[in-house]
Amino acid sequence: MFLPAEFSPIRDRPVADHGGALDRAIARFGGARADWIDLSTGINPWPYPVPEIPADAWTRLPDAAALDGLTLAARAFYNAPGDAAVTVAPGSQALIQMLPRLVPRTQVAVVGPTYAEHARCWALAGHDVQAVEDVDESTAAILVLVNPNNPDGRQWAPARLSALAERQAARGGLLVVDEAFAEVVPPVSLVPQAGMPGLIVLRSFGKFFGLAGLRLGFAFGPAELIGRMTAAFGPWAVSGPALEIGRVALSDRDWVRAMRTRLAAAAPSLDAILAAAGLEPIGGIDLYRLVRIAAAGGLADRLGRHHILVRRFDGQPDRLRFGLPPDEDATVRLRAALMNGDD
Amino acid sequence: MFLPAEFSPIRDRPVADHGGALDRAIARFGGARADWIDLSTGINPWPYPVPEIPADAWTRLPDAAALDGLTLAARAFYNAPGDAAVTVAPGSQALIQMLPRLVPRTQVAVVGPTYAEHARCWALAGHDVQAVEDVDESTAAILVLVNPNNPDGRQWAPARLSALAERQAARGGLLVVDEAFAEVVPPVSLVPQAGMPGLIVLRSFGKFFGLAGLRLGFAFGPAELIGRMTAAFGPWAVSGPALEIGRVALSDRDWVRAMRTRLAAAAPSLDAILAAAGLEPIGGIDLYRLVRIAAAGGLADRLGRHHILVRRFDGQPDRLRFGLPPDEDATVRLRAALMNGDD
Repeated sequence: MFLPAEFSPIRDRPVADHGGALDRAIARFGGARADWIDLSTGINPWPYPVPEIPADAWTRLPDAAALDGLTLAARAFYNAPGDAAVTVAPGSQALIQMLPRLVPRTQVAVVGPTYAEHARCWALAGHDVQAVEDVDESTAAILVLVNPNNPDGRQWAPARLSALAERQAARGGLLVVDEAFAEVVPPVSLVPQAGMPGLIVLRSFGKFFGLAGLRLGFAFGPAELIGRMTAAFGPWAVSGPALEIGRVALSDRDWVRAMRTRLAAAAPSLDAILAAAGLEPIGGIDLYRLVRIAAAGGLADRLGRHHILVRRFDGQPDRLRFGLPPDEDATVRLRAALMNGDD
Repeated sequence: MFLPAEFSPIRDRPVADHGGALDRAIARFGGARADWIDLSTGINPWPYPVPEIPADAWTRLPDAAALDGLTLAARAFYNAPGDAAVTVAPGSQALIQMLPRLVPRTQVAVVGPTYAEHARCWALAGHDVQAVEDVDESTAAILVLVNPNNPDGRQWAPARLSALAERQAARGGLLVVDEAFAEVVPPVSLVPQAGMPGLIVLRSFGKFFGLAGLRLGFAFGPAELIGRMTAAFGPWAVSGPALEIGRVALSDRDWVRAMRTRLAAAAPSLDAILAAAGLEPIGGIDLYRLVRIAAAGGLADRLGRHHILVRRFDGQPDRLRFGLPPDEDATVRLRAALMNGDD
């Protein structure tokens, strides 16, 4: 049977622990699922209310009208220029998986530490991947960064990134900007420049809109490469309900405005809770905070015993990421678990 | 920018007209969408009733428990043996798109005429694709067939296909069996043999269950190749609602049994309507019938003027495929449109 030499059972397994891994925490610390407060993701805990879904969205193959409706709403919401093409995918993870398969094997630099799936997926497709700390550290043809970065919230100005895209294009390469969390920092977005050669911008629907189960993401960029992505996903890549809900939510400017305000107030409240426990955030955005603490593993375990899940990072044993507590009960429990000392 | 030499704007565009293309018919023949009877697909017109969807399925990243629940239900429903691996994808089209990217470029024979996306997707990934009419016509490493075939309902016995899979494995290749419509012909399924080397079996959830908008499909096969597919799709490939609805529907044996009976009665009723208009089906299954008629285009246009959409085929100008009329009104209108002569 076909088995290319480059196949590796370890590398080809998805990264296990990047949010949503509540199952293992329950297995270790017990409790019913409903008892747990999951602060391990950067997903908005106050989701967009799921609207009425027409029966056709479930029963029919998603048609061109539904796809066009969503695409128009996405172009408007993300401020895509006329010369940028867009492809719609079942989640931004699906885009991160597919893009590396559509360019010839080359050198790829990923600016990090960041979301681990970028490096894994480029390596999985056979590229030569290196981790860099700064955008000027490498001459690789492909440069990948997350803006604002996850988990530390590091940001790059659009003008700086446009220049980088030009540099990468001149190398015959690409700048890939993952804007999975950019809804809470709108000015950083490079989508308005997404028609230029050598630039691909990824957007995630589920995080800011709190509907991560929907699986909906977008890539903006030059027509040829985006056309290849669209062809690779093929027809009906996105579910009918996702097309419908995405179109409605992306068009709801009042909800978006109110949610940005709500998140901008919630993040400082989380800071105060962390500060009261002697934890100073070293970075983050309005959807999460990153803290540095020598005994990060011990603190995560203590929170686990209180059935609160936070995010740890392989290779960064002194970091924890906290998502926003979804309600007053969760806030009280988080404060108590942080303050009580070991139990 | 990266643009491989093999890129072709024509080949890389999805096949436009393979069902669900109601938009163009409306543009040509007018009428509101609700006026149209769409018989152009092989999708069951009596969908599985969408169950209550827990809020978590929308808001959280689909977790291992949800994926495991669906996978177990699928293994039981499709009769997968213990040594077969399974990957879950957002539609069987997504599997058809991805598989060709995971095997080294080689010769591929597609037994047809059949669902056009197979040949397109293997070609898109750079393989050397030929159309064959019979399984013994080619020595290609990869042999692809649809069982039962779409649109003519042609069937291969599992014993014959097991032998073919062994032959393909001995060539260092694969037999790919697309069982998108096998729910109405359960004995043809090769899933019970899916652990053997050189065999990949694809299943589609949306057609028999009438929920094509959900985007859910499965591939069964040997652990290594299926593992590569799973890695290529990555985490959270399928939406939370699809995991939930799929699990419930695939476990509902009473509904499945009753639906098979209903479809088995409906197909002969369609035959009678066609026969009364002088149309003799030359093939099909309980979800659709294929007819041969010299003036197929003229008949399709006449039906279009009655706002009834049937399926035409590029390269087979004397064939039309009819899906099942969904209700009495549709039955009456189809009979009238077929009988009235030109209008």
